[in-house]
Amino acid sequence: MADTAAPISVGIVIFDGVEELDFVGPWEVFSMAKQIGAPLDVFTVGWPEPAIRCAKGLYVVADHAFAGAPKADVVLVPGGRGTRPLAQDEAFIAALKPYLAAATWQTSVCTGAALLGRAGFLDGKHATTNRNAFDFFRASAPGAILEQELRYVRDGHVLTAAGVSAGIDMALWLVGHLFGEDVARSTQTFMEYFPEPPYGNAA
Amino acid sequence: MADTAAPISVGIVIFDGVEELDFVGPWEVFSMAKQIGAPLDVFTVGWPEPAIRCAKGLYVVADHAFAGAPKADVVLVPGGRGTRPLAQDEAFIAALKPYLAAATWQTSVCTGAALLGRAGFLDGKHATTNRNAFDFFRASAPGAILEQELRYVRDGHVLTAAGVSAGIDMALWLVGHLFGEDVARSTQTFMEYFPEPPYGNAA
Repeated sequence: MADTAAPISVGIVIFDGVEELDFVGPWEVFSMAKQIGAPLDVFTVGWPEPAIRCAKGLYVVADHAFAGAPKADVVLVPGGRGTRPLAQDEAFIAALKPYLAAATWQTSVCTGAALLGRAGFLDGKHATTNRNAFDFFRASAPGAILEQELRYVRDGHVLTAAGVSAGIDMALWLVGHLFGEDVARSTQTFMEYFPEPPYGNAA
Repeated sequence: MADTAAPISVGIVIFDGVEELDFVGPWEVFSMAKQIGAPLDVFTVGWPEPAIRCAKGLYVVADHAFAGAPKADVVLVPGGRGTRPLAQDEAFIAALKPYLAAATWQTSVCTGAALLGRAGFLDGKHATTNRNAFDFFRASAPGAILEQELRYVRDGHVLTAAGVSAGIDMALWLVGHLFGEDVARSTQTFMEYFPEPPYGNAA
């Protein structure tokens, strides 16, 4: 008998110049939620090929090349300096559009929002991005309503986070939305995500 | 003329079964501090070889194999389920000891503390580890004083963090200690590390 409760798939798109914590933070959240029992399938999708040199130099090999990657219910597009050339890369944008369109949730962290914008998913949507990339965001998503003060923004099934570490909070929110607060709290507990930044938690 | 101000080197030891956020959190902190001007050299050291399959399945290729890796001023040993077999792996412990001994700072995240203990660096030291691994810690570091309530613990040049995400706070503390509060605060700002967990910041 087939299991009729298919897991929710999360495809994390990575590329040369992706910021490490932008995608590993949500990766850890979704993977930990899966470990404690949430029906999730989490994988990375490398553009164009699996081998990726991240923004700070970490070398990662994605689970799938972009061409032929499994469709995902949740697509997450992280940021990093690699988003600047990709926003001008017509082949990438043309490939990203149908991948995002096939998903239920279009999500981003940091300057990944600019790529959601270029792919046409932010028209009329409230969204956010890295604090140092508002101009890049406006140029890439001219129809969006930029929220400058929020850590993450949900508008329908579009979910965008501010810079770098904000993706952790966004991913925890989505785990709670999809599987309930108890699952999100347990995920947070197993990650011991009760932050104590040594110089405080205010910008 | 040689530059007499050599950077402080940070060697992050990774291995099959290393927890992703355990090491990518500190990697991001140290790498961001470097980007904004702190004299740091940050690299990963794979045991035994560079190709590493992390605990949640991320595939990473380290900068160096363990044998022949550059000495590091700061050695960071992350956790993850891979620490369980490594704590019993005499070849690994024999290799880790001199690598840690050559460093100024011996640091760990999560169950990496058990490996510091097995290598003999926690005798008489206050230290901490993952909340779900106190027994593993006690068995691996019988001479240590376990701090069960702290997010990270500094005892001399031994610095240990609690589970998974606690390494971010620990690394920010060390950046502040080495380079000053302003550098740590700027690093935090560029990471936008002002957490807002959706269900609060209390366990």
